[in-house]
Amino acid sequence: MTDRRIEGPVRIVGAGLLGASMGLALRERGVDVILADSSPSNLRLAVDYGAGRVAAEGDEPELIVVCVPPDVTATIVATELAAYPNALVTDVASVKLAPLDELRGLGADVSRYIGSHPMAGRERGGAISARADLFIGRPWVIAGHDGISYRRAAAVEDLALDLGALPIEMDAAEHDRSVALVSHVPQVVASLLAARLRGATDSAVGLAGQGLRDTTRIASSAPELWVQILAANAEPVADILASFRNDLDEVIDALGDISASGSRKRVAEALAGGNAGVARIPGKHGQAKHFSQLTIVVDDKPGELARLLTEIGELGVNMEDLRLEHSPRAQVGMAEISIVPEAEENLTRELQERGWKIAGASE
Amino acid sequence: MTDRRIEGPVRIVGAGLLGASMGLALRERGVDVILADSSPSNLRLAVDYGAGRVAAEGDEPELIVVCVPPDVTATIVATELAAYPNALVTDVASVKLAPLDELRGLGADVSRYIGSHPMAGRERGGAISARADLFIGRPWVIAGHDGISYRRAAAVEDLALDLGALPIEMDAAEHDRSVALVSHVPQVVASLLAARLRGATDSAVGLAGQGLRDTTRIASSAPELWVQILAANAEPVADILASFRNDLDEVIDALGDISASGSRKRVAEALAGGNAGVARIPGKHGQAKHFSQLTIVVDDKPGELARLLTEIGELGVNMEDLRLEHSPRAQVGMAEISIVPEAEENLTRELQERGWKIAGASE
Repeated sequence: MTDRRIEGPVRIVGAGLLGASMGLALRERGVDVILADSSPSNLRLAVDYGAGRVAAEGDEPELIVVCVPPDVTATIVATELAAYPNALVTDVASVKLAPLDELRGLGADVSRYIGSHPMAGRERGGAISARADLFIGRPWVIAGHDGISYRRAAAVEDLALDLGALPIEMDAAEHDRSVALVSHVPQVVASLLAARLRGATDSAVGLAGQGLRDTTRIASSAPELWVQILAANAEPVADILASFRNDLDEVIDALGDISASGSRKRVAEALAGGNAGVARIPGKHGQAKHFSQLTIVVDDKPGELARLLTEIGELGVNMEDLRLEHSPRAQVGMAEISIVPEAEENLTRELQERGWKIAGASE
Repeated sequence: MTDRRIEGPVRIVGAGLLGASMGLALRERGVDVILADSSPSNLRLAVDYGAGRVAAEGDEPELIVVCVPPDVTATIVATELAAYPNALVTDVASVKLAPLDELRGLGADVSRYIGSHPMAGRERGGAISARADLFIGRPWVIAGHDGISYRRAAAVEDLALDLGALPIEMDAAEHDRSVALVSHVPQVVASLLAARLRGATDSAVGLAGQGLRDTTRIASSAPELWVQILAANAEPVADILASFRNDLDEVIDALGDISASGSRKRVAEALAGGNAGVARIPGKHGQAKHFSQLTIVVDDKPGELARLLTEIGELGVNMEDLRLEHSPRAQVGMAEISIVPEAEENLTRELQERGWKIAGASE
């Protein structure tokens, strides 16, 4: 087993989804993994799953990864720094400035600490949901700071690479502003939007389409964890929410007197701002490329979608994306596939000749 | 050709995506379709596509479907009611109360008018994107009112059924409140959220995950059309947005002083409200059932996804939903499939035995 950068041992504190997944992946590469958890039963479970072993007298970990909730991250990191004076310590919390500030306040030796944030995994699940492949292809932010040298911090990048993730360097403040924008604010907005549905009639929610499903999907996230994340990143999140509220006020005012001069323009500008913003999101492989969409009617029985995709493959077309849409009560589904625009005309004709119904095309 | 309810002729005014799609579907069933459009070139195009014929002296349509933008719907409906005194007239605008009120204001004969709203199709595209199957399995609201008998209005339900849609009866005000909630407010919120990204750094948007993509996807909608929709449904939309703003203010205030007593509780309640709201959205076939999710690593090459789905089919498991996730710069994708919880353990083991990597499971 030489296809690894990390030597080990690696000590993982917190044997939940992230910690146990990391343990499984490192064990597969032959790394000695030491697990710790404040809950003996969590620890036992993760060991049973093969994510590592329990600690022993004289352990000398090269790297310690603290995988605990944001609220207790700094305290545990400080404890580990003190207990293992030769180890590099990192954490995986979704916020990076608050733990660093707190560590400095605690007088911890931050010359051996560098925060990191793997953008991976569902944020609930525990060791029972752990998978060695959880980090493959995911961005993994490494949040450097003035008090540590790049060379000293290299083991964290090695860890990310060994787990198949994509390391990205970013300082703690930039990380926190970035995730406020791309993750924390969308969470709050989705939750507040979904909350409108609480008092809805059955017939109203019966009209729900893919748009509502998409905009509210993440509203099912666990409040306990998200309160900690939002509290630890309160200022950047509140700043962006305040700018959201200013624009929202504009729209509400305009709708309140929609026949007034300028009202429609204000609404149109809000919508155009959304067009401009969504165009900034990179597509597959980081491209901001545009694809054509084809929607194909698929009977709701096993094997139909596989048959469709097999035929698309036989036609030599590479599918860039795929989404399924369902209508309530319908016994058919729609498969919306994204393809390069040049392939659209030919694929449409070929699929129709093979008996597939094309329900719509766009862009 | 007897598998139809509509006799015809059907006159369709407005040969865009919806009108031309309707024409194609009715022509397939042998119905005489008369097309009209204020643009001679749009009309020519739709006729060339086989969506119907141009009007002729002495046409006596049974049913007239007005498929024009919301702003001009009532005017065109009134013109058609006057020009064809024996025809039933409907429209397909995304709002229903404003056109009805406007028609009454114009003194039109609403005993022959009933509004409808097929929840189908992309709202841009024109005849060039028209498909006969556009309405299959989609809800189609029929907005009854006091001035027309159900019997007189039956042809609109026949039309919806002939096109494969699912007719739903609802009065105009209830329809407008319902679509404000499930469609118009999500559109505004997604646009305002996406607009935050305009000034984002490349490294920030580089961290974008599926959550951001989902919450902002509909922000790419066309502002010109949406201004008309929102303007015609201004009051219900503004009411819901105002309640959203009240809750948003709570969250912003709480984040502004997050260490104050009660602040975390206020944030947690906002998030829990989202949990409760999203649980109201019906799943596939209108069920509010919960499924287990399995995420499988799929190499980014043609045929891999088809192979996966074929094997899942061979294992006798019915996939309830499927979504693809991509990470920027990664050469692998993740296929998240939804299955009944009872199938999870067995399917996981079988797929792993066949060499698939399972990247995560949830719920």
